[in-house]
Amino acid sequence: MSQYRRLNAEIVAKLIDICGKNNVIYGDEELLEPYSRDEIPGTDYRSMPEAVLRPSSAEEVSAIMRLANAERIAVTPRGAGSGLSGGAVPLHGGIVLATDRMNRILELDKENMMIVVEPGVVANDINEFLRPHNLFYAGYPMSVETCYIGGNVAENAGGGKAIKYGVTSRYVLGLEVVLPNGELMELGGKLLKDVTGYNLLQLFTGSEGTLGVFTKIILKVIPLPKYQFDLLALFPDSRSAIAAVPATMLESGVTPVSIEYMDQDSFESACKYLNESLPCEGAGAMLLLSVDGNDSEQMMDDCEQLGTFLEKNGASLVYVADTAANSERLWKIRRNVAEAFSLYFPRQSGEDVVVPPASIAVVAEKFAQLADKYGVAIPCYGHAGDGNLHSRISAPESWSDQRWRQTLPKILEELYAIVAEQGGRISGEHGIGCKRLHYMQSVVSETYLQVLRAIKKALDPNNIMNPGKIFSFEPPAN
Amino acid sequence: MSQYRRLNAEIVAKLIDICGKNNVIYGDEELLEPYSRDEIPGTDYRSMPEAVLRPSSAEEVSAIMRLANAERIAVTPRGAGSGLSGGAVPLHGGIVLATDRMNRILELDKENMMIVVEPGVVANDINEFLRPHNLFYAGYPMSVETCYIGGNVAENAGGGKAIKYGVTSRYVLGLEVVLPNGELMELGGKLLKDVTGYNLLQLFTGSEGTLGVFTKIILKVIPLPKYQFDLLALFPDSRSAIAAVPATMLESGVTPVSIEYMDQDSFESACKYLNESLPCEGAGAMLLLSVDGNDSEQMMDDCEQLGTFLEKNGASLVYVADTAANSERLWKIRRNVAEAFSLYFPRQSGEDVVVPPASIAVVAEKFAQLADKYGVAIPCYGHAGDGNLHSRISAPESWSDQRWRQTLPKILEELYAIVAEQGGRISGEHGIGCKRLHYMQSVVSETYLQVLRAIKKALDPNNIMNPGKIFSFEPPAN
Repeated sequence: MSQYRRLNAEIVAKLIDICGKNNVIYGDEELLEPYSRDEIPGTDYRSMPEAVLRPSSAEEVSAIMRLANAERIAVTPRGAGSGLSGGAVPLHGGIVLATDRMNRILELDKENMMIVVEPGVVANDINEFLRPHNLFYAGYPMSVETCYIGGNVAENAGGGKAIKYGVTSRYVLGLEVVLPNGELMELGGKLLKDVTGYNLLQLFTGSEGTLGVFTKIILKVIPLPKYQFDLLALFPDSRSAIAAVPATMLESGVTPVSIEYMDQDSFESACKYLNESLPCEGAGAMLLLSVDGNDSEQMMDDCEQLGTFLEKNGASLVYVADTAANSERLWKIRRNVAEAFSLYFPRQSGEDVVVPPASIAVVAEKFAQLADKYGVAIPCYGHAGDGNLHSRISAPESWSDQRWRQTLPKILEELYAIVAEQGGRISGEHGIGCKRLHYMQSVVSETYLQVLRAIKKALDPNNIMNPGKIFSFEPPAN
Repeated sequence: MSQYRRLNAEIVAKLIDICGKNNVIYGDEELLEPYSRDEIPGTDYRSMPEAVLRPSSAEEVSAIMRLANAERIAVTPRGAGSGLSGGAVPLHGGIVLATDRMNRILELDKENMMIVVEPGVVANDINEFLRPHNLFYAGYPMSVETCYIGGNVAENAGGGKAIKYGVTSRYVLGLEVVLPNGELMELGGKLLKDVTGYNLLQLFTGSEGTLGVFTKIILKVIPLPKYQFDLLALFPDSRSAIAAVPATMLESGVTPVSIEYMDQDSFESACKYLNESLPCEGAGAMLLLSVDGNDSEQMMDDCEQLGTFLEKNGASLVYVADTAANSERLWKIRRNVAEAFSLYFPRQSGEDVVVPPASIAVVAEKFAQLADKYGVAIPCYGHAGDGNLHSRISAPESWSDQRWRQTLPKILEELYAIVAEQGGRISGEHGIGCKRLHYMQSVVSETYLQVLRAIKKALDPNNIMNPGKIFSFEPPAN
């Protein structure tokens, strides 16, 4: 199937020369298997690598890429493998380039309020490191406890704090990148603004490992807010909860850090998974809101303001988490929705649509109609304040595998059409990967796709960097 | 010199068919001349266009580009012409595509907090329009009263509010772009996050008109803060003022909207130009700081905090502007430094370096030594809080034109070497244009330049879009 060159003993010997014998996995199916997949449930998006390399430096990454480019071997960069779009799946075999050994925090530059890290640092570890300095990094994907910062940058991860703080890209000030041909390139630096040439920094951020491998990342950090208050608002049903999001934001005049939405299936699944309970008798949906800051009085005013407008917009009850432990309980439930779903709904497709924030109620309503039409469930949760809804199209247990496989593409086509109608896109933060590339044309033009391909071809003429992701695959010439 | 095709009667007739006779300037040197330059003082960066077109729609722009691409005619997009890097100068003649007729505010979407505008809207007019709605657009280049939003996006303009609000790119959510081949492409939309493909939105933002022409822009707007307080801090000399910037930011814990720096030459020139006076006897430099918000008490606390640390860090006096009129007086002085310099120092080079914020004192000190070494003046002003210093290398009156022309490249080389040593770049917000392209290699690698050229070639193979800007020019094949 693949037209890439396959590894052989000679090439593997060269790779061992580069990375060291202990850092090359080859010929052992059992050890290779964990690198064949990411966190997409089920077995559809899996593909075995021929080898896994674990380089420890930019020089080693560069040597690997030079060799792979010369030999026309596909290379798939991998962080923690916590992705949800198949970005780290080695579709064409070849090499998985694992960044787990490049996991050092290189420098905290307090004067410039910046931190320099390697790609394999766990996102949460950055904040653990920063906390004693009263600083923080504002990225907060739900996989924050396991995901790597390199993967966050490659996918331009969003997460739970984007309303106030924006997504990953806002904090990426500099990158050291190894290009597909093995050349090393520095982008940006310890600079708050820079127009010296095209914004390659932002082009590479979110490029899903198709343009290069990050070997160093400079992030902006900000003062750690002294307090975070969390609110839990219960609603009788999904419709009222989702409709309350834009209304409350607009009317209260408060910019919260987060407005996370969970429908009944979502929070019940997560609670069951965690063996946790919530005081939410009879609630059909809930919103989890946070505010942060240094002025607790002002923040209490904000919470009160939010509470007033949540109730005005249909909330039946609004709780304030009274301790840090209770806050963490709420957030833990939210963080575990995806994993719970993966366990309880083995046949499902996790979607990540994003629409104009004012359109989420319309979209959620239409998704519910779509679910009824096809007799599936489409529970929804996610970053409602950003217009970013995670929806899990889930087959009833009674369905055969064949029925599921035949029906899902039709549901997706209609689901994306609903999104397109509102001017939305098919991914807000999980990426396109191999999971969504065939649906790109439902929301973007052929012209746009041609430009993507032209840029890819200009930077990776042999198409060896993570081929088969984002746009349709074009095999190398020889 | 140019290998582009020149306009002839036949082509001009076609252009008139597209734009209408009244919107084509051709054959009239006097009418064409204002389109030969931007706001760079002096006559070095000037070049006459063969024709100026003033299209009124994306369709007209598209038709122009199709024709220009087929005929290999250079096209230079132009906003208000208020740029400072020669970006709008038609280096190879051809067509200047003026956007002044595309000046409509198309939609205010209050629910989504977004505004949709055409490229020829004056930046300040957006805020005049938004004010009655208690909303605002946070871009604030010093040319805000004249510059067009399309130019702001093309240059990724910075300005006076970037410390708190970031630069233009943070607010650009969507673009309609006409590509060099005339095809229309939509990027982004009314979306707060989007990872559906590469971040072309940010690639085009700041691309200086070399990749396409913007015909529609979607901007994020935010609630208008109720209050803005301005502080003027006087310092005995440049060194103490500049050193106080990072120290005060770090120690006070306050994030101001602005920290603008002006040395004595800068504020005295602007005051003279405006026939204005300031209570600044004996001051050798000053900082202009702003805070904004809705809680005037909190803001007064912030001002006090800033004042305390400004004085601790060497300020001899700190004033608070007590009325809106006094605030505007201060800001007017700041906004007019560039124009004043252009008038009083006809032989000068306006620089726009950006360095890590903690390095500005070192850099300013080395610039002063450089000025002494060559016997020139290098007055500095600008966005010190961002590490973005505007420096005006100015020749003494006694110098011959020849001496100036021979010496300036040497000074620039050394000046940029100082910047490179600190990990800085040669432009923070004015762009590279034709003014700085020969100095790119002083701060970026050949690999980086090759990637820029590869992207340009992929999107504009005939190199007709604003050729001769950012990187060195490669003429079209035929």
